[in-house]
Amino acid sequence: MKGRTLLMIPGPIEFEPAVLDALGAPTVSHVAPAFLEAFGSALEAMRDVWLAPTGQPMVVAGSGTFAMELAAANLVEPGDRAVVVSTGVFGERFADLLGRHGAEVAVVRAQLGHAVKLDRIEDELRRTKPQLVTVTHVDTSTGVRMPISEIGKLAKRYGAVTIVDGVCSVAGEEIRQDEWELDVVLTASQKAIGVPPGLALLVAGPRAMERFEARRSPVRSYYADWGKWLPVMKAYEARTPSYFGTPAVNLVAALAVSLQQILAEGMPARFLRHRTLSSAFQAGVDALGLRQVPASPEERAHTLTACHLPAGVPATQFVPAVAAQGVVVAGGLHPDIRDRSFRVGHMGAVRPGDILATLGAVEAGLLRLGANVEAGVAVSAAARALAAPT
Amino acid sequence: MKGRTLLMIPGPIEFEPAVLDALGAPTVSHVAPAFLEAFGSALEAMRDVWLAPTGQPMVVAGSGTFAMELAAANLVEPGDRAVVVSTGVFGERFADLLGRHGAEVAVVRAQLGHAVKLDRIEDELRRTKPQLVTVTHVDTSTGVRMPISEIGKLAKRYGAVTIVDGVCSVAGEEIRQDEWELDVVLTASQKAIGVPPGLALLVAGPRAMERFEARRSPVRSYYADWGKWLPVMKAYEARTPSYFGTPAVNLVAALAVSLQQILAEGMPARFLRHRTLSSAFQAGVDALGLRQVPASPEERAHTLTACHLPAGVPATQFVPAVAAQGVVVAGGLHPDIRDRSFRVGHMGAVRPGDILATLGAVEAGLLRLGANVEAGVAVSAAARALAAPT
Repeated sequence: MKGRTLLMIPGPIEFEPAVLDALGAPTVSHVAPAFLEAFGSALEAMRDVWLAPTGQPMVVAGSGTFAMELAAANLVEPGDRAVVVSTGVFGERFADLLGRHGAEVAVVRAQLGHAVKLDRIEDELRRTKPQLVTVTHVDTSTGVRMPISEIGKLAKRYGAVTIVDGVCSVAGEEIRQDEWELDVVLTASQKAIGVPPGLALLVAGPRAMERFEARRSPVRSYYADWGKWLPVMKAYEARTPSYFGTPAVNLVAALAVSLQQILAEGMPARFLRHRTLSSAFQAGVDALGLRQVPASPEERAHTLTACHLPAGVPATQFVPAVAAQGVVVAGGLHPDIRDRSFRVGHMGAVRPGDILATLGAVEAGLLRLGANVEAGVAVSAAARALAAPT
Repeated sequence: MKGRTLLMIPGPIEFEPAVLDALGAPTVSHVAPAFLEAFGSALEAMRDVWLAPTGQPMVVAGSGTFAMELAAANLVEPGDRAVVVSTGVFGERFADLLGRHGAEVAVVRAQLGHAVKLDRIEDELRRTKPQLVTVTHVDTSTGVRMPISEIGKLAKRYGAVTIVDGVCSVAGEEIRQDEWELDVVLTASQKAIGVPPGLALLVAGPRAMERFEARRSPVRSYYADWGKWLPVMKAYEARTPSYFGTPAVNLVAALAVSLQQILAEGMPARFLRHRTLSSAFQAGVDALGLRQVPASPEERAHTLTACHLPAGVPATQFVPAVAAQGVVVAGGLHPDIRDRSFRVGHMGAVRPGDILATLGAVEAGLLRLGANVEAGVAVSAAARALAAPT
């Protein structure tokens, strides 16, 4: 079905063979000792990947959007106020979702390609006095990375808990959940976590748990209710059988393998590798004269790159032209630039050779569509960046 | 992790190697042409498996409990009345879930081991005039099978739509969704559908869609909102790219393979095979003198068997004793008989040899625990049943 094409979209990504082997292995019972061990060890490993020693990890079958609901549904009650920091499509989605759970939502919205400055967020916190703040760490629709090391402390000063949508960042971008006082950090399996799509993951810190326990009204979504899942997560971590909904056994087994690989690399080394490879990729697109969607280098993600296309090269032609070179990249997702931009994911198991292969295919695709670029400039810029001492 | 143990619990079950191969294959983009074809063909095949030519199929990452929410959240609004037909744990769960979505719920509850008679349901419909009726086709906690061929028409006469929880029945028990006028029939991947856990599936008929379209209030669960998923399902069926949440690519690819296998067998042949193999298994446990949880043969499921254990043989000892023979069966799930019963799943890819192997392990487990049974009586009774002309 896939052959030897290289999958370089912002999720799903290329996965390690050992992860796929675990996924395709014969299924065991969800209460088999081997599965208790796999699930238990995955939950333990999450604390180390999230750098959240005091956190409560949860893994439930669902997409990244479900991970957003799994976080938010438990932390808002009808009439609560929420501030959403939006740098793209997924910020808007969080606002939509929070409204569904009865929150009054104020959106602090960035201009396309920009992060939101912390003082704008503080103004809104002062004005709104919200119970909840959400921020998209890396918005997959714009490639913009929000600085999040201070936002949790800021929200806490105003009495709010913070949810970080880390779908396109956890296990790729630096996140220190406990140190940065981020109350919930959520993600989905198919991004830098390195497991095919189908798992929603989050780690909830002590202040989030306190807020959940103090609820006055039932959680509106039954399947997202922490009250149902917490005993299950605690039981698996204690290696004892438990049941609410049948866990996605094969995906969880694959998750256990991937998390061990991530921890074997080590979080500092992993963050650095994502920085190095993204810098090399971005040096390549800069050399081609392509303008990135994030307005400044400081606002660029290390997990994906979003680029404007040259005039006259629509994404609907560019993506197939790159695919003809054996590399799959994604078109635009943000409605304002959907057909005038493309996106490349470089996270998880990505290697230096993938960066070069992708830039080579981007060059070839542009040339084939008549764009005024020079063959080789992107790959040589990236190779120079990769060779530079870090 | 699994070795050559035989997994005979009521889900997850043994899966076909071709399904596991598809699951473990390298992941493609969720908008790759090959995946559009896999997802589109899976949706089309669901209509044939559900015998629902006029239905709208949906597949979303989640467990069976999420499938219940994916159905119910869209069909109730706060203040609506719902009648839940409960034959075990999963009926009670539906009542709990519907309450979460604001419904006033009346439960028509069977005695343990019994189905609910249609006239009791009609009494409740007359009294309550509900907007919604739910029924668990086969309750995994009791092994009780409800007759569902008339319930949809009955509910319709009283102006209600019907949701069938077919988690332990779809693709195993006979269901003719259109002919029987069942408005929604839902299931999960890890049962008779034959795919490892992680997908919620349903087919919604025209009356369910009408009721959804006439809603006055937003669906409380964002991730379960048909309004988000319908355009995606229609796009995949038209083989065009679309996006709401990233589909569980590998599981959907595996689903496409399993559904083709199911249709290659043919639905009448598949229903008959489940009848034949369950009759043989149940003849075996009858021969051992074990009392089944369903009170009469007409109330027994064809997808699983729930049995009381002899006095002095707790499930906590029996299940490991059977596992020592290489066969994994499940303990009780219903709170009233948890440690005094066991459950065996026989659905999906189950073969005659699995029936014999399981009964042999059950015999050996009982003997090892000192129960007064005769070796060989169960397997020979089952072998005679299997040899009988159907």
